[in-house]
Amino acid sequence: MVKIISAKWILFSSEERPLKNGCIVIEKDRIIDLGLKEEIISKYENSEVIDLGNKILFPGLVNAHTHAPMSIFRGIAEDLPLMVWLKNYIFPIEAKLKEEWVYWGTKLSIIEMIKSGITMFCDMYLFEKEVIRAVEESGLKALVGEGIFDFPSPSYGPLEKGFELTKELLKNFKNHPRIKIAVSPHTLYTCSPETVKKCIKLSEKYDAKMHIHLCETKEEIEEVKRKYGKKPVEILKELGGINENLIAVHCVKLDEKEIELMANHKASIVHCPESNLKLGSGIAPLTEMLKTGIKVGLGTDGPASNNDLDMFSEMRTACLIQKGLKEDPTVIKAEDVFKMATFWGAEILGFSDTGKLLPGYKADLAVLDLSHYSLQPDYNPLALLVYSAKSGFISDLMIDGNWIMRNYKIISINEEEVIEKVKVIKKEILLLLSQNNYLF
Amino acid sequence: MVKIISAKWILFSSEERPLKNGCIVIEKDRIIDLGLKEEIISKYENSEVIDLGNKILFPGLVNAHTHAPMSIFRGIAEDLPLMVWLKNYIFPIEAKLKEEWVYWGTKLSIIEMIKSGITMFCDMYLFEKEVIRAVEESGLKALVGEGIFDFPSPSYGPLEKGFELTKELLKNFKNHPRIKIAVSPHTLYTCSPETVKKCIKLSEKYDAKMHIHLCETKEEIEEVKRKYGKKPVEILKELGGINENLIAVHCVKLDEKEIELMANHKASIVHCPESNLKLGSGIAPLTEMLKTGIKVGLGTDGPASNNDLDMFSEMRTACLIQKGLKEDPTVIKAEDVFKMATFWGAEILGFSDTGKLLPGYKADLAVLDLSHYSLQPDYNPLALLVYSAKSGFISDLMIDGNWIMRNYKIISINEEEVIEKVKVIKKEILLLLSQNNYLF
Repeated sequence: MVKIISAKWILFSSEERPLKNGCIVIEKDRIIDLGLKEEIISKYENSEVIDLGNKILFPGLVNAHTHAPMSIFRGIAEDLPLMVWLKNYIFPIEAKLKEEWVYWGTKLSIIEMIKSGITMFCDMYLFEKEVIRAVEESGLKALVGEGIFDFPSPSYGPLEKGFELTKELLKNFKNHPRIKIAVSPHTLYTCSPETVKKCIKLSEKYDAKMHIHLCETKEEIEEVKRKYGKKPVEILKELGGINENLIAVHCVKLDEKEIELMANHKASIVHCPESNLKLGSGIAPLTEMLKTGIKVGLGTDGPASNNDLDMFSEMRTACLIQKGLKEDPTVIKAEDVFKMATFWGAEILGFSDTGKLLPGYKADLAVLDLSHYSLQPDYNPLALLVYSAKSGFISDLMIDGNWIMRNYKIISINEEEVIEKVKVIKKEILLLLSQNNYLF
Repeated sequence: MVKIISAKWILFSSEERPLKNGCIVIEKDRIIDLGLKEEIISKYENSEVIDLGNKILFPGLVNAHTHAPMSIFRGIAEDLPLMVWLKNYIFPIEAKLKEEWVYWGTKLSIIEMIKSGITMFCDMYLFEKEVIRAVEESGLKALVGEGIFDFPSPSYGPLEKGFELTKELLKNFKNHPRIKIAVSPHTLYTCSPETVKKCIKLSEKYDAKMHIHLCETKEEIEEVKRKYGKKPVEILKELGGINENLIAVHCVKLDEKEIELMANHKASIVHCPESNLKLGSGIAPLTEMLKTGIKVGLGTDGPASNNDLDMFSEMRTACLIQKGLKEDPTVIKAEDVFKMATFWGAEILGFSDTGKLLPGYKADLAVLDLSHYSLQPDYNPLALLVYSAKSGFISDLMIDGNWIMRNYKIISINEEEVIEKVKVIKKEILLLLSQNNYLF
């Protein structure tokens, strides 16, 4: 039996015109057909027809970069220089990080992502096995990687163990339908060229994505130049790391030649505009990137530096800031950021059959409820989605043909339990900070 | 009998530390006391005690610039150059504007403002009597002004009638507790210096605010220079219009000397960062403004160019964009934008006894429900409010001691009726556009 899902509006992808009173047909985990509601219903006899009514049906959003467990640190320290924030708050707590915190922090973030229409995300953090556990239980899709750096990790210990863990994950999740593993060197200033070289080899051997923070701040570039006499992109190029597997996150300080180099080698970029603004890193040259044709995904970054996982807000900010900076409202459009947040993001994360509501694609979708006050009137569903939708206006979410949220109720997670657990973790973190005479 | 309202957190104002398990005491329309819950309850015998529980109680937000009726045009045309947007869409429809549209559009906007924690706004548009009717019925506070310009208005007709209407409103609302009238010349490029001079005189005579769009774009400045050989601020200065009554909106293209001039003459500025970005006008020099001590309010601008009336988003954007632009996360802080969005905004609009939850101030407040997913954990209530709160997470709202919304239910407006009326108006607007062979 197939599922026929209809809604007032369907946004199939950023490239198709919105369809009014249309529907899609789902068989198992894939979309097999689409069309006007009445025609389709008469075509499929043995079907379950679900009429969503006054809603917009659209491809689930892809949060292409986050540190999901960090929701437990949301708001712990604000408006501080990056190094004060890291050294006085984040690093000392992370040194005592517990597996359980990572698990519940990820679950809290997944709740927020589901309620914001996100069906897939990319994560880099510590104790990623716990992130994977939360993802598996929730039904979401993810590309995950254990953060690799030269100093000992609170998670795996010495560097060598980090490679072992990554290899183990790469083997174990080789054929998982919803989880993929990335090799995840942290940055060029926390990983020596030798470490990065090993990561590149590993990524080649397993044909896995390599996920790295790159050129986030001018300080990063200066530090790398001081250490190695070269800029981060130069090092990465020499090591052979600029290729189709590369997911370079941030790229705030990429110059035109570097963008072109990345584009020519079919690497991908993930743009995290709100975190870049909030931490004072700057504004990435997004319009210049898009001109080269390089694929750019969109990510929230961690919820401790954003401070949310809201891809509606991220699409809107990405679009607004370029228009304002270039003093030209046509320089980037709603469809550009919608593409970044859907099938470009999915392709970058290695799920190339996801991100559009077209036949052959996976049935990963979200439903925006048009009954809400800021979604009136509905002249233009794409404009509503990008410029007026709010996290929390998502009523339903489906992944691989399975409902993850239905009528605002998340099926796969007990929301209250997660919020109670996070309250306990908050107390543990505050106790830890007070015992260590930190600034809080 | 007094009302005692307690909550997990109270943010009295941007200047006080948040209080845990505190309460405020309200007598009629004013706050008369505050303190820890148990002490206060034992102090007042004859009281109604309202425990809001796991919430943040904070001063209602002030949307210091909007064109509320324009919600009926939300999304009608997007990603276009300003002049194409105005000339092909907005102006042709506005030429046929109906009083009824203004009334229902304002009601729709008021629903959104209430659900976003806004208790007061400043409006400039056409048929402002209809805006006033909606404000009176809803219980909100507003400073409103009928837009004045040299060409005939779809509302009042020839210019002279605009002055008559403004005078009539100034007289009729002289002592209204919730509504104040502003003299509202549209801009220096739509009003001749003589028209602006008349507005200044009127504002002086009635001791009323004068509300004008100023230096929004570089094109505006060029046009004014071409017409009059002088920059807009120069003209306004020569006319004697830079004074305590002046509310200058946008000021994207103000230079340092102009900011100083405005500050020295105790004029006020309203910053509308999201609209300025979206229309490609640019980024106003907010940090430079704040350094001079000039009062700066925060506004969403009209919902056709934003595309919402969400002051949480506006506070966040105002803060993030300056941090990113200056590449310094300390250059502006959560408390700065919270001040702009509360008592600075209220003072600018002429309601100087509003905007803080301290004894002597009006009981205008909003309640943020901490049970929502992006508000976990609550280390820092101000950071949650500015960086993580979403429109729609407001559970309750009070103005002058009266509940306007209680447990997510707006008391003063029938939300469904408004949404149904706006659907009808949408059809009328689409018909109008199709009859006129406009681009839509």
